[in-house]
Amino acid sequence: MSPIVGVIGGGQLARMMIPPAVELGIELRVFAESGGESADLAVTTIGDFRDADEVLEFARGVDVVTFDHEHVPQPVLATLVEAGVAVRPGPASLLYAQDKLLMRERLGGAGLPMPDWGTVSSSEELALFLDEHGGRAILKTPRGGYDGKGVRVVRSGDEADDWFASGEPLLVEELVEFRRELAQLIARRPTGDIAFWPVVESVQRDGVCAEVIAPAPSSAGTVAGVAADIAAAVAEDLDVSGVLAVELFETTDDRLVINELAMRPHNTGHWTIEGSTTSQFEQHLRAVLDLPLGATGTRDPWTVMVNVLGGPPGAFSDAYGLALDDQPAVKFHGYGKEPRPGRKVGHVTAGGDDLDEVVFRARAAAAYFS
Amino acid sequence: MSPIVGVIGGGQLARMMIPPAVELGIELRVFAESGGESADLAVTTIGDFRDADEVLEFARGVDVVTFDHEHVPQPVLATLVEAGVAVRPGPASLLYAQDKLLMRERLGGAGLPMPDWGTVSSSEELALFLDEHGGRAILKTPRGGYDGKGVRVVRSGDEADDWFASGEPLLVEELVEFRRELAQLIARRPTGDIAFWPVVESVQRDGVCAEVIAPAPSSAGTVAGVAADIAAAVAEDLDVSGVLAVELFETTDDRLVINELAMRPHNTGHWTIEGSTTSQFEQHLRAVLDLPLGATGTRDPWTVMVNVLGGPPGAFSDAYGLALDDQPAVKFHGYGKEPRPGRKVGHVTAGGDDLDEVVFRARAAAAYFS
Repeated sequence: MSPIVGVIGGGQLARMMIPPAVELGIELRVFAESGGESADLAVTTIGDFRDADEVLEFARGVDVVTFDHEHVPQPVLATLVEAGVAVRPGPASLLYAQDKLLMRERLGGAGLPMPDWGTVSSSEELALFLDEHGGRAILKTPRGGYDGKGVRVVRSGDEADDWFASGEPLLVEELVEFRRELAQLIARRPTGDIAFWPVVESVQRDGVCAEVIAPAPSSAGTVAGVAADIAAAVAEDLDVSGVLAVELFETTDDRLVINELAMRPHNTGHWTIEGSTTSQFEQHLRAVLDLPLGATGTRDPWTVMVNVLGGPPGAFSDAYGLALDDQPAVKFHGYGKEPRPGRKVGHVTAGGDDLDEVVFRARAAAAYFS
Repeated sequence: MSPIVGVIGGGQLARMMIPPAVELGIELRVFAESGGESADLAVTTIGDFRDADEVLEFARGVDVVTFDHEHVPQPVLATLVEAGVAVRPGPASLLYAQDKLLMRERLGGAGLPMPDWGTVSSSEELALFLDEHGGRAILKTPRGGYDGKGVRVVRSGDEADDWFASGEPLLVEELVEFRRELAQLIARRPTGDIAFWPVVESVQRDGVCAEVIAPAPSSAGTVAGVAADIAAAVAEDLDVSGVLAVELFETTDDRLVINELAMRPHNTGHWTIEGSTTSQFEQHLRAVLDLPLGATGTRDPWTVMVNVLGGPPGAFSDAYGLALDDQPAVKFHGYGKEPRPGRKVGHVTAGGDDLDEVVFRARAAAAYFS
């Protein structure tokens, strides 16, 4: 009777799909790698997402398969599609979120704005790219990187011999001189309808998203329009279903260039849970089910999200009560994860009319956990 | 590590506790009468809430026990308390939500405003009360009534012989001439802190809540203050923990009198999910865990909730897609229940600046399901 959405991966993104699924009356089933993960409440299968048989068995019980992460191998996805399973986003789209080299080639071919980039397979090739780009560059492993992993800044050709040893070509990109990082979220139905949230500013620390300000200050007008156009072009070109996050650099010479893509709800969209009429998690469920998309207006002039990393020994230690007491209007989100240094274990969101005050409240709340 | 809240009863109120529990990082466990109820996702035990042993076994695994309904018998509650289980609200409070006669006696004794009322055990006593109150009255079974059940309007002493046959005394109340029905929700921690939402207007149809307008129009000022004072006095007098709903009549001679009480999240508070910084469901979890209460400011000048009764053959029939398409800013809530005529199967909520327009949108969305 109710549609059933199957999610591969049991992390916090799957967890945050539970509330809107409960509200909309959608049944959510999660395929997790192990028990006790963030989305435990909705886990129906524990298995290996690299095993086509296990994933297919799970997929046969649901109306549509979607994802908490981008790591499901293409052969597994192909098995699902061959068996007639609705996979959203589909394998041919996901490929470009899985492989950064293919993403650069594809989006470059579509004329979308990107940093200068190249493929390098040796220290000599890397040295050549460095010579042509002021002696500094970003080197990335095409696959498997996230939250600053698989990414390093290089200043000489011999700094990445450990990576070249694998024999796989690497992606090298110019070190863009940017004013700030932005993110544009968009949702797209299989039938093509799209909905935007306003472009946001994301503040990174140690390669990990630390804060998001929505909307990005001073973005009304040109910046917002350009960001939305870029995201719409990416979503169309890659035929994305569901939520797409396009991370952008705003360069010091006033251009927006594409940094990374994610084809799922994204850390830069957590603010939408309270800050938008329709959250990214609700919208993702609507989109992958090909239901009409919800309104994406903002509920406050400013919304600020701050990640909680590492965290206290227990999510409900004294710190938790103190934080709730100190910031009664801040919303707290715990991911049910064991805290480890640097691990995202939750986030807080504040909203209001005055940006300075909203930033203060969100940071004050998050500070109790650090 | 995370606190565990145990809920007796698996209906939509338990279901709507799931989203804030997931967000706050609280583990929710539900004791339901059967499989497939609204709160199925969080059900850990299926049993009989009248069986003290079954309930106690469930309760031993949680940090606090609370409720989806008021029907757990006092002896079962006493067993929990004797075993050292935290029960919130406690049995001595719940008694007054379970028995309307005791509620009238207790709150009358506390000097709180109520309709004229009496206890009647025979058609002769009823006839006498009718003579003294203009020939009309409301007759109620003290226990077990809800949504218009166990309530009837009587105009002669012999209209309730079927009820008198049980031998139990009945509650009789004057038929209050009221302008409208209001509801005041309040949350209270065991340590005494309280938080109010604004008083709301509830529109009943056939004894069932049909619509709620928040805040109640023209209530700013005296009405809001009186309603809040009454609810605070009830919460204090009955030592309530968790959410308390006080249903009120606004009489044609400008008084507020207490109609009914509920000691749990209540239909007249569903609007808070989108309409307030802290929903009644989140606040109930905070309160029963004795965590600091959240801010209860409104997120829009007006919020309107309309219940969806009976409903379509399937929650995701064509009607669902049409409703989402027609009203992209209205929030839809399905309870995962098989639709039966008159059964509450969901609700919709709209918010905005203009009351007429908000009412229109909420009704338009709900109309797709009727």
